Amino acid sequence: MAYKETYPSKLLEDAVDAISSLPGVGRRSALRLALHLLKQPAENVHHFTTAIDRLRDEVRYCRVCRMISDEDTCSICSDRSRDRKTICVVENVRDVMSIENTGQYHGVYHVLGGIISPINGVGPSDLTIAELVERIKTADAENTEVILALSGDVEGETTSFYIYRQIAQYGVKVSALARGLGFGDDLEYADELTLGRSIANRQIFKP
Amino acid sequence: MAYKETYPSKLLEDAVDAISSLPGVGRRSALRLALHLLKQPAENVHHFTTAIDRLRDEVRYCRVCRMISDEDTCSICSDRSRDRKTICVVENVRDVMSIENTGQYHGVYHVLGGIISPINGVGPSDLTIAELVERIKTADAENTEVILALSGDVEGETTSFYIYRQIAQYGVKVSALARGLGFGDDLEYADELTLGRSIANRQIFKP
Repeated sequence: MAYKETYPSKLLEDAVDAISSLPGVGRRSALRLALHLLKQPAENVHHFTTAIDRLRDEVRYCRVCRMISDEDTCSICSDRSRDRKTICVVENVRDVMSIENTGQYHGVYHVLGGIISPINGVGPSDLTIAELVERIKTADAENTEVILALSGDVEGETTSFYIYRQIAQYGVKVSALARGLGFGDDLEYADELTLGRSIANRQIFKP
Repeated sequence: MAYKETYPSKLLEDAVDAISSLPGVGRRSALRLALHLLKQPAENVHHFTTAIDRLRDEVRYCRVCRMISDEDTCSICSDRSRDRKTICVVENVRDVMSIENTGQYHGVYHVLGGIISPINGVGPSDLTIAELVERIKTADAENTEVILALSGDVEGETTSFYIYRQIAQYGVKVSALARGLGFGDDLEYADELTLGRSIANRQIFKP
């Protein structure tokens, strides 16, 4: 039940084109959203578009960790209570937000801005790996721990390995996220790879 | 698994607020979309916001049928081959697009711009009913048919009845969409109301 590409107005069609360029938004949803915006007061729509324009035009990144920030240095890097000897390397901004939401981490971050992915044309030089190396070289590397918190797929593993080779020479401790069954997960529904590794990496039972 | 409302940047938070104001877009999706836009070239983002601003600021409505249009009169109303004695009354722009897509209708339209809904504070004066009445009064009403193509819920029925009372006095023929089982529908899964009406409104079998 696809809409044929006939729109009563070029303005409407242009807006649908624009909105449907967003990931996960089809043309039918885009039409619904465009007609919704059309019904709103003009000032609400301008507020909507201005917020997006400002985000794109005025966004800044922390000079230390490359996290999105409104300041030269982000709130985490400038927080004196955070442990600056522990650097958690993540792919993107959302990963930082997810880890912050756990409330379990008190170190600092390094945001790569992506993951090494030859198929998507993303190489090491497109990421902030050089900045990470620089950061470690100028720090007290011997007493620094780098946590590689990248995804567990091939691209994540490749990126972790690449970074490890770049930084291990400076004597930092390098760790990675624990992998295994999720808490509360049922063995029956676990994939074989996860289950196999969970057995291999079994830990002392601490009741 | 809700994100707590802590954003690393006010600009990002404002953009997420704006995007999540769209119907059906939660804060998590809004964050994903905001970060997607952040990765796009600035000119693409400006193209996106400009298309939306222009739609809202420059949109026009056909002076005859109130359909969205780039011209003073829409392409349907100005098409000499359309039957102007048949006026199909619909709730919104999408309904026109849906009916046009069937390729089965060759009359013209009248777009109400909504439906009478006391619960949403929408009364007859918020819709283009007065314009419809004016249109019928100034036409050859005796030879005009008005098709009420509104939804079959209480609000649609109420609106149809209200319009009927406003226009019947001018001698127009008033019809409504056929209701019954959808083509290909299975009796077993039809709701009782639809099935009941399908029996009551049964038609001569024309093989």
